[in-house]
Amino acid sequence: MKKIIASLIAIIVLIASANISFAQTQQEKINKEIDNNQFELVNEFTTLLSIPNVAANPAGLKDNAHWIMQYMQSKGIQNTSLLSLDKTNVPPVVYGEVNVPGAKETIIFYAHYDGQPVDSTKWYKGVHPFRPSLYTSSIDQGGVITAWAEKGTSYDPNARIYARGASDDKAGVMAIINGYATLKKLGIAPSVNIKFFFEGEEEAGSPNLEQILNKYQSTLSSDLWIICDGPVHQSSKKQLVMGVRGDTHLELTVFGPKRPLHSGHYGNWVLNPAMELARLLASMKNEKGEITIKGFYDDVTPLIAAEKEALSKVPAVEEQLKNELGIKATERTGALNDALQLPSLNVNGIQSAGVGKNSANVIPTKAIASIDLRLVKGNDWKRQQDKVIDHIKAQGFFVTDKEPTDEQRKQYEKICMVVASDGYNAQKTSMDNVYVKRISKAIQSASSEYPVLLPTLGGSLPLYVFEKTLNASPITVPIANHDNNQHAENENIKLKNFFDGIKMFAAIMTMSK
Amino acid sequence: MKKIIASLIAIIVLIASANISFAQTQQEKINKEIDNNQFELVNEFTTLLSIPNVAANPAGLKDNAHWIMQYMQSKGIQNTSLLSLDKTNVPPVVYGEVNVPGAKETIIFYAHYDGQPVDSTKWYKGVHPFRPSLYTSSIDQGGVITAWAEKGTSYDPNARIYARGASDDKAGVMAIINGYATLKKLGIAPSVNIKFFFEGEEEAGSPNLEQILNKYQSTLSSDLWIICDGPVHQSSKKQLVMGVRGDTHLELTVFGPKRPLHSGHYGNWVLNPAMELARLLASMKNEKGEITIKGFYDDVTPLIAAEKEALSKVPAVEEQLKNELGIKATERTGALNDALQLPSLNVNGIQSAGVGKNSANVIPTKAIASIDLRLVKGNDWKRQQDKVIDHIKAQGFFVTDKEPTDEQRKQYEKICMVVASDGYNAQKTSMDNVYVKRISKAIQSASSEYPVLLPTLGGSLPLYVFEKTLNASPITVPIANHDNNQHAENENIKLKNFFDGIKMFAAIMTMSK
Repeated sequence: MKKIIASLIAIIVLIASANISFAQTQQEKINKEIDNNQFELVNEFTTLLSIPNVAANPAGLKDNAHWIMQYMQSKGIQNTSLLSLDKTNVPPVVYGEVNVPGAKETIIFYAHYDGQPVDSTKWYKGVHPFRPSLYTSSIDQGGVITAWAEKGTSYDPNARIYARGASDDKAGVMAIINGYATLKKLGIAPSVNIKFFFEGEEEAGSPNLEQILNKYQSTLSSDLWIICDGPVHQSSKKQLVMGVRGDTHLELTVFGPKRPLHSGHYGNWVLNPAMELARLLASMKNEKGEITIKGFYDDVTPLIAAEKEALSKVPAVEEQLKNELGIKATERTGALNDALQLPSLNVNGIQSAGVGKNSANVIPTKAIASIDLRLVKGNDWKRQQDKVIDHIKAQGFFVTDKEPTDEQRKQYEKICMVVASDGYNAQKTSMDNVYVKRISKAIQSASSEYPVLLPTLGGSLPLYVFEKTLNASPITVPIANHDNNQHAENENIKLKNFFDGIKMFAAIMTMSK
Repeated sequence: MKKIIASLIAIIVLIASANISFAQTQQEKINKEIDNNQFELVNEFTTLLSIPNVAANPAGLKDNAHWIMQYMQSKGIQNTSLLSLDKTNVPPVVYGEVNVPGAKETIIFYAHYDGQPVDSTKWYKGVHPFRPSLYTSSIDQGGVITAWAEKGTSYDPNARIYARGASDDKAGVMAIINGYATLKKLGIAPSVNIKFFFEGEEEAGSPNLEQILNKYQSTLSSDLWIICDGPVHQSSKKQLVMGVRGDTHLELTVFGPKRPLHSGHYGNWVLNPAMELARLLASMKNEKGEITIKGFYDDVTPLIAAEKEALSKVPAVEEQLKNELGIKATERTGALNDALQLPSLNVNGIQSAGVGKNSANVIPTKAIASIDLRLVKGNDWKRQQDKVIDHIKAQGFFVTDKEPTDEQRKQYEKICMVVASDGYNAQKTSMDNVYVKRISKAIQSASSEYPVLLPTLGGSLPLYVFEKTLNASPITVPIANHDNNQHAENENIKLKNFFDGIKMFAAIMTMSK
């Protein structure tokens, strides 16, 4: 009897392993094809990276859209078009489809082709945001410039391409298109119908996304949106992200005397706006990193058990990060991902008169702070802004949204101009979503690692719009290395992440039930 | 008997009034001559103002010195020379003498020809720091550009010349030279021997003044130094100033992560250096404007009775100033001049990442504050700096004077780089100085107003050097309007102040015992 059971087990194991080995074989074929095409893939990627993609240059954004559409057509993607509104200067969405005979599900893949503004003077010497260059590794860690590969040869996976959009998010656009292109080339049919949706206004806060989704509602019908944006986990593991924090901004200007004053003749009789701003900012957070603005954490929806469990499984990267970033202490003690489950207030920049060579013996006329608020499920961006404004008032400031008039200057002891930008709320897809396991397995088949599962990304994407307009529950699958300098100077992508991303999307497009 | 007494009194009054009327007649003659020469005086003044006088342009400073020396020669001043050191690029002192037969006293007049750095882009549209222009009044108060006077006509006394150095301190140079030149032209002999001393490094902190005073000690021997720099009282009254505050600077840089981080993915886990700097600055001063740094006020020499009395007589200008500056509250309650009797800490500028159009969703890598410390009698500039540094340490910072190393980043939770500039101490001349009354009377004779007597100016001049090297007790006699935008963009001088200044120096040069 024992022998029979043992034999049965052996047979089951054999069948199971045969199944696995069949699946691995197909993905191995895909992976090999991608590895063999490194020269062409990088060539085409850097061609796209050379087209300026900042909001300040609408013509450049259009050039990007046209290039991407033609590229999709060259890869056999059908029904390509530019989705636009009856407005000028709205960068179009680049759209395309692959209809698979017999497929019962439709997955739509999202990425964006626009990038954050650039200040070329801040980039490393010799590195230009729109003239992609290749470095042996991260320049921060001693990487040096190196030549592009020759046709037929492959790249060092640690090499990095430096350019605006290299990670955020032209890599996403190229990984999605080439995930499909690889299948097409190998004659492998996707297991799902595919739609492509590449936005051109994400870094500007996607002001027209809602209108576009509404206008093209039927075109965009699908069973799942997969968002490719943001970085993989700091442990280098792939990750599946169920949500994003919301985001909004405030710019605070504290006013001092109408003209710059000699700091000797008037200090410290005249109030110094830089000191007043410092005091105001300091009043917003305590030494433990807790925001002390009344009600700041009040609306937060508590985490559910499945989210807590997922968080407990996130690999610890805190010590690695501290080392990498050259910091000993953190603002909040505990794990990074625990901190990201809370709404935040962060100073993006401050400025008053000049420092260094530009400093003079003056009492400045004003002091400015740019702050961003990240929001979690339960927060409303407008309500969160109001809490900050109420706090400023509670510190004795008269709050205005314009430069103060002479009358206001006479009336109020402290004046703060608050310019509130638009914002959007957080979004979260349920941990029970049926696609979580299927995508995770597909990712595992492409990279032999089961991905990290995150309840939310720290960063923001306007995913609430998909929920609101299409009742969709998007899942985010990022590909960029975490140290990609996203949003700052010297943006880059590690080539391993770029190639792995293509493999991953090919795997998702062929995933089984 | 009564009649005799009455007659005697009448005679005495007659003699006294004759004396006064004789003195007034001479000063009236001087004043008239100056008023008649407005065209030439402004012409020559603006020629000097057209020569760039910033430290970054040593050749420009030399041109200024040469022009001034030739100008002095053309006005009949003797023994002119350039006092210099055996160093390159030290702007020379322009020196000259007028030796008066029979005069028993020697007064040396100080002014400086160098100006604060300029950023032309910050000046009003159409106003250039080195192309002097004339406005009907203060541009801030609606003044508009107007043409220069024609020969033989006079100027509106409220008109203002806009240019770097217009007030600080080429007006001083020109007023002193032309005070003498007017006497010379009218054939009036000064009552004292005169020496002229025009420095070219005051705005750079007079780093070579001590050496020059030592080297030329015998040439510079005198009974009194009169310093012409700074503004008259805000009430527009002339003033006599017995001292100046000392001055020194610190630049603080608080460090965050080594690379700019995405504020979503890392806020608020990573410490934000802008927030840390805000907290640090806020810890230095309380809501009452009192500096909370340990021992900050400890070394202050208390005011003597004569100083307190002088302060009690200073005209109240607080409400006028608040109105003019568009402020309701002040940092310290009470009188401006009471605040200036204390050491101060003032934020000159702060900067971290960008604001406005330059803001991005980042956690900045560092945050910088430039602060200046004004010092009063009793303070030592080095000791005062140390108190600030000790305070920073007490807030938990590791203090370094260089960018932190990776090892230091690993070792310390909070790091602040402190770059301490050189500085100098306050100086005060005794209220009992014999010249106080004589100069005050001379000023009264020139402008029919008794000047305000100030124990100290809020601003700083390196007057301690005169005390240290020559055992001299300088007295400061400023001429510029208080709202001259000294040290900032749009520096200007009111023409009334310029002409009054010339009259005043002519009066001092002919003052009686």
